[in-house]
Amino acid sequence: MIKIIVDCFGGDHSPQANVQGALAALVQFPDLHLILSGDEEAIKAQLAGNEYDASRIDILHAPQVIGCDERPTDVIRLKRESSMIKAIRLLRDDDSVAAMVSTGSTGALVAAALTRIGRLRGIIRPAFCPILPTMSGGIVGVCDSGANVEVTADHLRQFAIMSSLYMENVYGIYKPRVALLNVGKEPEKGDELRQTAYRLLGETPEINFVGNMESRDLLSGNYDVVVADGFSGNVLVKSTEGAALELLGKLKKDIYSKFIYKVGAALMAKMFKEEKEFMNYQNYGGSVLLGTSKVIVKGHGSSKAVSVQKCIEQAYKMQLSELGAKTEEVICRYEHYEL
Amino acid sequence: MIKIIVDCFGGDHSPQANVQGALAALVQFPDLHLILSGDEEAIKAQLAGNEYDASRIDILHAPQVIGCDERPTDVIRLKRESSMIKAIRLLRDDDSVAAMVSTGSTGALVAAALTRIGRLRGIIRPAFCPILPTMSGGIVGVCDSGANVEVTADHLRQFAIMSSLYMENVYGIYKPRVALLNVGKEPEKGDELRQTAYRLLGETPEINFVGNMESRDLLSGNYDVVVADGFSGNVLVKSTEGAALELLGKLKKDIYSKFIYKVGAALMAKMFKEEKEFMNYQNYGGSVLLGTSKVIVKGHGSSKAVSVQKCIEQAYKMQLSELGAKTEEVICRYEHYEL
Repeated sequence: MIKIIVDCFGGDHSPQANVQGALAALVQFPDLHLILSGDEEAIKAQLAGNEYDASRIDILHAPQVIGCDERPTDVIRLKRESSMIKAIRLLRDDDSVAAMVSTGSTGALVAAALTRIGRLRGIIRPAFCPILPTMSGGIVGVCDSGANVEVTADHLRQFAIMSSLYMENVYGIYKPRVALLNVGKEPEKGDELRQTAYRLLGETPEINFVGNMESRDLLSGNYDVVVADGFSGNVLVKSTEGAALELLGKLKKDIYSKFIYKVGAALMAKMFKEEKEFMNYQNYGGSVLLGTSKVIVKGHGSSKAVSVQKCIEQAYKMQLSELGAKTEEVICRYEHYEL
Repeated sequence: MIKIIVDCFGGDHSPQANVQGALAALVQFPDLHLILSGDEEAIKAQLAGNEYDASRIDILHAPQVIGCDERPTDVIRLKRESSMIKAIRLLRDDDSVAAMVSTGSTGALVAAALTRIGRLRGIIRPAFCPILPTMSGGIVGVCDSGANVEVTADHLRQFAIMSSLYMENVYGIYKPRVALLNVGKEPEKGDELRQTAYRLLGETPEINFVGNMESRDLLSGNYDVVVADGFSGNVLVKSTEGAALELLGKLKKDIYSKFIYKVGAALMAKMFKEEKEFMNYQNYGGSVLLGTSKVIVKGHGSSKAVSVQKCIEQAYKMQLSELGAKTEEVICRYEHYEL
């Protein structure tokens, strides 16, 4: 049995999306047990009317609510009875609880994870690894995408090891092709950080390093995971998502500008719907935080039920595949830690 | 009369695109005089059969050719008789020559510009500023997009001043809205560099600083120019272009997958053509190098004639508006240089 806590508050569609996503995940994985954290009455109201195995769900009552604009440090200090912080505490204290999923504040979650949960042995900096769809029908991960705005080459090598193991163990990608985000393909491109990281990644036999990647090639399908500092990784992910969404939005607007276009679009309705689904990040789950000693998955603030379900699936597979132990084993070869 | 050198070699469609673009620019601007650098016979062969005012074109014969993989330092040292390096030398030595346009190697051009042409008074680092179309029908500049992978907050302030004046003087944008590329909107977001730059930009009355911009909002139309270090600026521009092109490519492929989609697309042919033109960077000219003591415009390596013509237009307007002198005037208020 795998036990996962779902923070049911803090998202745009909370608690409804979180509770419905949780119920769907229970159907998907028969050996899953869930703990739903948040206001007990509100969660019970969402559960009411659904058919589910009540013995596989517990509620962790947490009355406090975290506001949008609260600073991460204030959340940890002042919102000890909130759904997120109570969940983090239970994750820390209860050995039987394997993982946590949250759609709440990213900053607060990272701060709480680092101070309350801690890191895998040997890991210097946990890092986010969101997943994007490629144009060849596959997926690509980006690590880090925002947890660490300043990094060293050693951090980048750890991101490469962690994310490569993640793509292999959770998505079943054989020898994931790992690239380094850079301003050109040649080894000597970029600043000293990139040049040193290029060398280190090439000297790491546990990963399949395929060289530098220019940002325009992210969706090409030629890479399985891209390693970056959290600043440029964040720019990479958000500008790619932003451009695709803006362009789809423009197409939609232009279609409505002429009758003949509307007719054409009607014939293509199924295709446009598929494109929209394809680009919809809700279908790809959340951004996992790699490197913490227990599994933590951060869903988009705008997550709907399907996205929450995917986040639970990611957490479940990370735990099932023993990703943490596998990561420690490789990392400790480089960081001179005793296992 | 404004005299501009066009480097006619080094692009994918050189010298044909460069010469045809030059001829179109001559028609567009009656007081323009052009010097075409490169192999004289090849340029004459391209000119043959066209009607033009021969008194407004000179040829600067340059027999050497620069290969794709040559290192910038080798180009400067060993290719002194190439079209790019001869053009740079003439630009430096001839006071009557105002500007240069090239579609050749970016690295070689930047290296040659910095070592042979020098900077405007007070400018610490010249920076690139390419232009992208926004979804609201306008344009947005990104400065720097790759000339400087490591920068300080002072550099970022200079980029902001230079690019704001550029958008105002060349594109006629009144009080351009200047944003700082960051991982979130709040002033305290990002690393120390971003936090310091945020403060400096806010203390610069010559620019209309509107705060941090997240990369997903680049095409929103809410900003006229975005300031970034060359690494993340490069990631921003290339991932935005890359995502848009990949998505259009996928749409095209999917249209051909079913007969009914082809019928629909046929009705929408005009619209799709317009979208393609809209996203076509050829229509937006090149990436100007701001901060050099003479005007330098770098066109895409894949530039066709229309793009070369736009690059010449950009160079012409930069010179006509006396952008260099205006930039020096503002910069020297901050850098304690005597004008």
